Amino acid sequence: MMWSSCRSGAIGSGLCVFSRYRITDSFLYRYSLNGYPYKLHHGDWFGGKSVGLVILKVQGIIVHVYVTHLHAEYCREKDDYLPHRLLQSWELGQFIRHTGKTADVTILGGDLNMHPNDLGNRLLQCYTGMKDSFVETKKFEGSEGGCTLQAQNCYATVWDCPSFPSGIRIDYVLYKGSRGFPVKCDHLMTTSGTAPGKNIPYSDHEAVCATLSVQKDEGAATGAKREEETNPQLVDILNEARAEVKIGIHGAERIRYSSGRMAVLGFVLLLLEVVMAIIPLVTTTAENSFPKVSFYILGMVAFAVTLLAGILYVFHTIEVKMLQGTEDQMRNTIQALQEQLGE
Amino acid sequence: MMWSSCRSGAIGSGLCVFSRYRITDSFLYRYSLNGYPYKLHHGDWFGGKSVGLVILKVQGIIVHVYVTHLHAEYCREKDDYLPHRLLQSWELGQFIRHTGKTADVTILGGDLNMHPNDLGNRLLQCYTGMKDSFVETKKFEGSEGGCTLQAQNCYATVWDCPSFPSGIRIDYVLYKGSRGFPVKCDHLMTTSGTAPGKNIPYSDHEAVCATLSVQKDEGAATGAKREEETNPQLVDILNEARAEVKIGIHGAERIRYSSGRMAVLGFVLLLLEVVMAIIPLVTTTAENSFPKVSFYILGMVAFAVTLLAGILYVFHTIEVKMLQGTEDQMRNTIQALQEQLGE
Repeated sequence: MMWSSCRSGAIGSGLCVFSRYRITDSFLYRYSLNGYPYKLHHGDWFGGKSVGLVILKVQGIIVHVYVTHLHAEYCREKDDYLPHRLLQSWELGQFIRHTGKTADVTILGGDLNMHPNDLGNRLLQCYTGMKDSFVETKKFEGSEGGCTLQAQNCYATVWDCPSFPSGIRIDYVLYKGSRGFPVKCDHLMTTSGTAPGKNIPYSDHEAVCATLSVQKDEGAATGAKREEETNPQLVDILNEARAEVKIGIHGAERIRYSSGRMAVLGFVLLLLEVVMAIIPLVTTTAENSFPKVSFYILGMVAFAVTLLAGILYVFHTIEVKMLQGTEDQMRNTIQALQEQLGE
Repeated sequence: MMWSSCRSGAIGSGLCVFSRYRITDSFLYRYSLNGYPYKLHHGDWFGGKSVGLVILKVQGIIVHVYVTHLHAEYCREKDDYLPHRLLQSWELGQFIRHTGKTADVTILGGDLNMHPNDLGNRLLQCYTGMKDSFVETKKFEGSEGGCTLQAQNCYATVWDCPSFPSGIRIDYVLYKGSRGFPVKCDHLMTTSGTAPGKNIPYSDHEAVCATLSVQKDEGAATGAKREEETNPQLVDILNEARAEVKIGIHGAERIRYSSGRMAVLGFVLLLLEVVMAIIPLVTTTAENSFPKVSFYILGMVAFAVTLLAGILYVFHTIEVKMLQGTEDQMRNTIQALQEQLGE
């Protein structure tokens, strides 16, 4: 048994892979954005959410196993983290595409924190060409609809209980084969309810277990691993994603502006205080009539506001930059796809 | 002409690629560590240093062009950023290895902020199998020793002028071919001195211009792109790098400990103040004899110290985690290499 864990963030990314087969190589990519450090009650930022890759050789077949955990969705109606999760989906797809070109078999397992038809999920599957094992499996056993987040789980916080009484499917096993290595999902299973002999479940989510089979076809394995197929649907999905990322940019710019204004106000107040403190020292006629206690408190408050608002300004500037970069990349990809489709 | 720029950090990564040939795809990896945000006078942190990849198709040859800028070296004798730069070299090498498997030709250009024989440079070249165009070129024109950082440059801050009077070579063009696509460096050039007709140079560093030629050998192009050669030297270099990263971990743990202690002290002081403020309110006998001004100032200071030291604690915890993760990865790689060499 080999294992590979992924240290990241302040408390760790929570990703770990245990393997019966030798792990020949590994790599970690930390998402550019992952929530806000000041949202302590959500806490995703502190996890340093990432995607890990381990490369296995199983009976001569090169298998790339990706494992990830995307930012949680706390409120579906007003999802502040949608742009971050979309950026993560995009970076995840890019990471898989760029590192997975020589893989015979590609598998992604993880808590994507997205419903099956959510934009990020469609983007990921369409962009990478990976298939959802729940949709493809020949045989399924487990919870209704494959739901892995269930209200009856004592550790889970289902934010949208009323809308989804039977739970939500947010944990996935996606896969794709390549030329000469077609992959099928023979069996998919989720745990359900409490662990045997206990009155508590294994975890806050139900576990997902997929049995995949590879039919090695030596004859077809020569040449390019896989055709770079251009899916016309991808253009629409990317346009939709780009619109959402743009909304995210506006939101981030708004917070950046507020933080910047607050920092400037704090700084002006601080300057005023300094002037007020200096005047009685340099003149003999003027007298500082302002109460001392209030004066000092105001000074400290001004200092704290300037500093904290300044830090926030830098943080949200990074957020804006990262979202803009993602939007740039999406726009370039759309252009390239349209040119390919036009040819 | 196509171009691709890389938005990252608060002020941008400063990376940009202009290409005569169509850029078919691009990808960006931001390094896990990149200095400290509170070292404002160094400022590297705000750049969000990254490595960018653009994929070109030049006359049917797939060319991966990587572009990067690593953390600066401000003091060679006591280089606080060595562990960060080593981590960046390691991640750069991993990024090139994992994303470059299908490339016919791989090129890396960038300001590596490392001397030619520095550990990070040796690690990068040995791990990726890339060659230094300055060493390999048939013909060289330009500044003495290919030095790109020169004391006489009016924009440059050469921190180690006395030790390196003719300058330092810190900007590189590295390359490698693949089976069927051997690459040679025909010509290397650096700019030197001021721009023609002006009395200022083009930039703070001399520019590097490499002319590479690819001799396509169709016969040999079948099969694996390149043999996964195991360089026995790599084990020694990795051990050396691991030792440096470990020193970095100790350093980061020390600062984390100091920050944590400061945060706890600040918090205890804050609690004491709260108690002192409450006592006169609940008892009639006690009297608050502590001067009011000092009392409030102390409270504000305690609050600010707790908050800032807390933020520093989280930041340095992330630093420790990232360095530990790198050390883990290096150890695993050493193990895998030793097993391969043993076989």
